[in-house]
Amino acid sequence: MPQPAQALGRLRKHLHQTRLLGSISSSLYYDQNTVMPPAGADWRGQQLALLASQLHERQSSDSYADLVAAAEAEAEAVSNPDAEPTEDPAVPGRRRRNLQLLRQELERQRSLDPLLVASLARAQSRGNAVWQEARRRNEFAVFAPALEELLQLRREQAAQLAPIEPAARSPWEILAQPFEPGVSKARLQELFAPLSAGIPPLLERVLAATRSSTSTPTPAAAIPEALQESLCAELLESWGYDPARCQRSRSAHPFSCTLGPADYRITTRVVPGQPFSAFLATAHEWGHSLYEQGLPRGDDHYFPWPLGEATSMGVHESQSLFWECRVARSKAFASRWHPRFAEGLGTDPWGGSQAFWRGLNPMRPGLIRVEADELTYCLHIVLRFELELALVEQGLPVAELPELWNRRMGELLGLSPQRDAEGCLQDIHWAEGLFGYFPSYALGHLISAQLAETMERQLGPIESVVAAGEELRLQHWLGEQVWPLGRSVEGEELVAQVSGAPLSAGPFLRYLDGKVDRLLECA
Amino acid sequence: MPQPAQALGRLRKHLHQTRLLGSISSSLYYDQNTVMPPAGADWRGQQLALLASQLHERQSSDSYADLVAAAEAEAEAVSNPDAEPTEDPAVPGRRRRNLQLLRQELERQRSLDPLLVASLARAQSRGNAVWQEARRRNEFAVFAPALEELLQLRREQAAQLAPIEPAARSPWEILAQPFEPGVSKARLQELFAPLSAGIPPLLERVLAATRSSTSTPTPAAAIPEALQESLCAELLESWGYDPARCQRSRSAHPFSCTLGPADYRITTRVVPGQPFSAFLATAHEWGHSLYEQGLPRGDDHYFPWPLGEATSMGVHESQSLFWECRVARSKAFASRWHPRFAEGLGTDPWGGSQAFWRGLNPMRPGLIRVEADELTYCLHIVLRFELELALVEQGLPVAELPELWNRRMGELLGLSPQRDAEGCLQDIHWAEGLFGYFPSYALGHLISAQLAETMERQLGPIESVVAAGEELRLQHWLGEQVWPLGRSVEGEELVAQVSGAPLSAGPFLRYLDGKVDRLLECA
Repeated sequence: MPQPAQALGRLRKHLHQTRLLGSISSSLYYDQNTVMPPAGADWRGQQLALLASQLHERQSSDSYADLVAAAEAEAEAVSNPDAEPTEDPAVPGRRRRNLQLLRQELERQRSLDPLLVASLARAQSRGNAVWQEARRRNEFAVFAPALEELLQLRREQAAQLAPIEPAARSPWEILAQPFEPGVSKARLQELFAPLSAGIPPLLERVLAATRSSTSTPTPAAAIPEALQESLCAELLESWGYDPARCQRSRSAHPFSCTLGPADYRITTRVVPGQPFSAFLATAHEWGHSLYEQGLPRGDDHYFPWPLGEATSMGVHESQSLFWECRVARSKAFASRWHPRFAEGLGTDPWGGSQAFWRGLNPMRPGLIRVEADELTYCLHIVLRFELELALVEQGLPVAELPELWNRRMGELLGLSPQRDAEGCLQDIHWAEGLFGYFPSYALGHLISAQLAETMERQLGPIESVVAAGEELRLQHWLGEQVWPLGRSVEGEELVAQVSGAPLSAGPFLRYLDGKVDRLLECA
Repeated sequence: MPQPAQALGRLRKHLHQTRLLGSISSSLYYDQNTVMPPAGADWRGQQLALLASQLHERQSSDSYADLVAAAEAEAEAVSNPDAEPTEDPAVPGRRRRNLQLLRQELERQRSLDPLLVASLARAQSRGNAVWQEARRRNEFAVFAPALEELLQLRREQAAQLAPIEPAARSPWEILAQPFEPGVSKARLQELFAPLSAGIPPLLERVLAATRSSTSTPTPAAAIPEALQESLCAELLESWGYDPARCQRSRSAHPFSCTLGPADYRITTRVVPGQPFSAFLATAHEWGHSLYEQGLPRGDDHYFPWPLGEATSMGVHESQSLFWECRVARSKAFASRWHPRFAEGLGTDPWGGSQAFWRGLNPMRPGLIRVEADELTYCLHIVLRFELELALVEQGLPVAELPELWNRRMGELLGLSPQRDAEGCLQDIHWAEGLFGYFPSYALGHLISAQLAETMERQLGPIESVVAAGEELRLQHWLGEQVWPLGRSVEGEELVAQVSGAPLSAGPFLRYLDGKVDRLLECA
């Protein structure tokens, strides 16, 4: 007579190997973006396409479908919960959720043509390389054919997935599902409308105060690269960075990735003229990494199961934004770190920690999303959300993207990019065919703010915790309330479960309002 | 009617994918040795084992055997050479050689148990990690179990291969074949005997001169890391390093590897107290890379075929040693680079280029192979060759390795390691189960010297070419005479073909003799 969890064991073995392949692919991606010489791109694209085909095969084959079906049948057949094996993922509720998520992903994978999967992997790799070149040369025309190809392949992907999706889902919505399960354009518009209404008046308050101010703004301090590096290292060390399990590198675009159950990488970059860019990006990427490290997959055992994954990119982003904005940009944090910056420089170009704090919170519209302040950041997302919809669903010709980008940038933020490298070529996402991803960044701000309100009810003001140098208490709270949930709940459910209220823009707007007040007070 | 080269085309497609997988494995290896955090080792080992299994499957499956057999039959059937396809590897001679090498490798792979292949990959990856730890802690006992396991697995590998090898081949010889096709213990002893006889008297001359010298030896100059880095970059630039296709990183042990047809990596390390270590290692690894870049595989087309591979590790090493020893340690090179070192330091600790040249050629016995001078280097290899034979074939218990190592080190070089980290833990090779590899380093010295004699007959003295700053002429000569041969000939055949004489220790000993003369003259 077969053991109760025999099918589950076979399934786990299969998933383990799938995860090995997936993490090999991530390792190649990491190398590509940190050290690979540019001419390696073509071969790297072929390697990634091969792995993508293998992954697709493993995730869609009949034999894998049989494994999932057998595990489902086994779960049905077990009538006595006491007979359950004791390992966690096999506990009935968790097993049900794991199998449900696996079934959903299986149906998706089986809907896709393997040729499309391989073409997409090649196009993503080529897109990345061409984008780097186009951005360097500031020539959108270099990138346009790759973008056109990626759009066409993604539209084809949405069409292949449509039969298994709810009938009302649009192509863009279908493509956004992997990043934000359950997301819809209507819900996003509902969540974003208060931002579009509430942020401009706040921005106007800030700009009016700037115009009427008689004090000269502090010029951006030039911080030598080596000092930026050592301050980033110091920050990470104080936030629990373990060099035995983590690695920090440089890349054109900061990112965080997990290459194994004990192998976490983050990357940053030093930007000339942006003294806090590397420092804040380090806080940001480390926030992503902490979430990954805190997911219920501390050992190999959990690593292959869906429950051990991040539940949505919005929740992921809430974790990075929490550490970047709520902690590293806080007034208390500025007071503690101002002396280290000044000591490293051998001088204090800010003339005190208040101005240093203002330096960390510039509150002025800029062209670059990843350098944007908390106030205007979401307007960058509104722009991309609009343009993605136009590109994917509304027939906007690729060639017209730069012009439309520049026009909407003017309307939303009052700025005109002089170069596409500072405009529609600034982000890597579309270069890798990631349409439907950007809204998660704005959701991250909303989620971070709503979770932070709950956290403050329980731990007291974040400013006080940071002033006491007790950021590890904040980590501990997140490590108990948020990270271990994995994919047991979807993003909005997670927020509701932890905060006791449905997600809304309220907490974020309240937070912004208070921050603007305090910034203007000490301006 | 099928096209003449239809089977060959199918075979090429298969080999292309095999090469993609192999290069993925190399990419993970590169990452492991340059940036991976230590705790990632276990998962990385699982990734590499998975790839090794896949590779073994692709290289030993019935379907692959059918592809090779079909290509062989196709080659037999073609009676009219004019009907041949025009692409190079299909030209009859080359095709015959490609198929012969593929057949040989196929038989090898089919002799191996897939379980052994996976176990070996895991053990190699674990061995690497454990060795790093053991070396750091200077504790041989930490490494011993991993070494024992690797020895046992390699002995098992030799036993599985024995039926398809010539009957007289010993286990060590079988393991050495992949590095040095055709190698035998007897031939190595024949080639090495003149070294064991000829080097000690030369060494004695040097040591006697040192003892009787009244001048104080120049202390090793301390060269800041940043200056070492920039001098290495300058060296590579002057030798044709193309950042679009190449990447230089740091690792514990310098190495060179090829990750794709246009993706070449080298690594170096800065060693405290060894001012020229990084500089000479850069020259050395770049020599390896130049050979790889010059192999007949300038595009994807050649990359998958055996003819596009290096013919032996001895020949590979001859190329790295040529650039390190014949060029970077030459007197003319020292004269040209001494001013740059002095300028970078802002002072001249050598007091002239003669002493700088002597600094590049220390000629004194040391404990560390990779830091050894040209005179004593081969004695390090004699030691390892002996000990490998003892471990693999003669029942030396692993626990006795450190003691035997230290005793023989005393007999051969008159030195006693105080720590195993400077003794039997210094090299990575055994930690990855590479037994049979070390002799290639000594062969590299012999081959480099014999090729250099031929080169000098054709181009004039290397010293003169280097004095004129015309190293690219040397590259050009190697790029015409040596690199494009790939695996069309075996290592010793290559030497005989290029130099017109069988390989011997003569040229190397003549070169050493002359160098010692000149060094003593200006001491």
